[in-house]
Amino acid sequence: MAQATAGPEIERLVQLLARLPGFGPRSARRAALHLIGRREQLLSPLADAMRVAADRIVVCGACGNLDTSDPCTVCRDPGRDTSIVVVVEGVSDLWALERAGALRAAYHVLGGVLSPLDGVRPEHLSLDGLVARASRPDTRELILALNATVDGQTTAHYITDLVAHLPVKVTRLAHGVPIGGELDYLDEGTLQAALRQRTAM
Amino acid sequence: MAQATAGPEIERLVQLLARLPGFGPRSARRAALHLIGRREQLLSPLADAMRVAADRIVVCGACGNLDTSDPCTVCRDPGRDTSIVVVVEGVSDLWALERAGALRAAYHVLGGVLSPLDGVRPEHLSLDGLVARASRPDTRELILALNATVDGQTTAHYITDLVAHLPVKVTRLAHGVPIGGELDYLDEGTLQAALRQRTAM
Repeated sequence: MAQATAGPEIERLVQLLARLPGFGPRSARRAALHLIGRREQLLSPLADAMRVAADRIVVCGACGNLDTSDPCTVCRDPGRDTSIVVVVEGVSDLWALERAGALRAAYHVLGGVLSPLDGVRPEHLSLDGLVARASRPDTRELILALNATVDGQTTAHYITDLVAHLPVKVTRLAHGVPIGGELDYLDEGTLQAALRQRTAM
Repeated sequence: MAQATAGPEIERLVQLLARLPGFGPRSARRAALHLIGRREQLLSPLADAMRVAADRIVVCGACGNLDTSDPCTVCRDPGRDTSIVVVVEGVSDLWALERAGALRAAYHVLGGVLSPLDGVRPEHLSLDGLVARASRPDTRELILALNATVDGQTTAHYITDLVAHLPVKVTRLAHGVPIGGELDYLDEGTLQAALRQRTAM
């Protein structure tokens, strides 16, 4: 007996909410009731924010960031050292680095990493745009800020080869012990890297 | 350095998503990127569904269910035995019982349960409406489908006393419901058994 309990509108809201990451049918119903109970404070503003996002967010033609303007807020920022380009897999990595706030440089979003298992090949990534940026005379350094996974490191090596003929310097993020991390809980690869790349006190 | 990374529109979307139950800043950012990456399939339909919900969902004047029509889909269903009124704490409980599909009866949503600790007193619940429904000559039975918690059971006894002068039969769910459990979290088999084995108060 799959009776319609509350009309198709709420059912549709629940079904769409259930497709959010981390949500299932039960948490989606809970979220729907939470939203309907906070109509003016949350549901209506969220509907508007989503409509704005759906209508106005574009991919920045320069770096691949998401924004309502192209070039994006980061690319239009005059205070950045655009001779350094931080290469990231996705927009969430760009946001994470911006939250860290360690470097005011330019970015280049690859849109993924090479992954033979998932069928991601070089033509699926924005590598042409990256080579074009690396070829510009004012680009001094590419920082490969890719995940320390097999696919991330494979991609880092691929990019290094791709720009080897250019005068640009290519670096990658340091490997080591995370701040606040305890040695006892770290994997051997991280400890080995941290020992190899030890720095003077 | 709290730089604006992606313009205020995405920030606002993330902040609103972070207020969903079970979401925090990190999962909200993940959800925002998930939505923006599925603009036509998910973000735009979800914005529309939320707008419809915000504009059109009303509380059913007869039972307290949420729907886009008043009376609601359940109350307008001609195939229901309206001589039986299932009394529930909230709309999520009504939905849970409907999913179980064990009984096609009418509902009455209390809007809470009595709770001295939380300051919920009889005047905060829709008890007048319940007594009015219980007084109708065609109402034969009230099924108190309240949580098996102290507050739920206190409320059940309060309602039993409230309608004791009426000829209506008052039953409660069988103790298939685990003590301390909440209806919204139960599997359908347990809810079906609890409805079938309801006992006189």
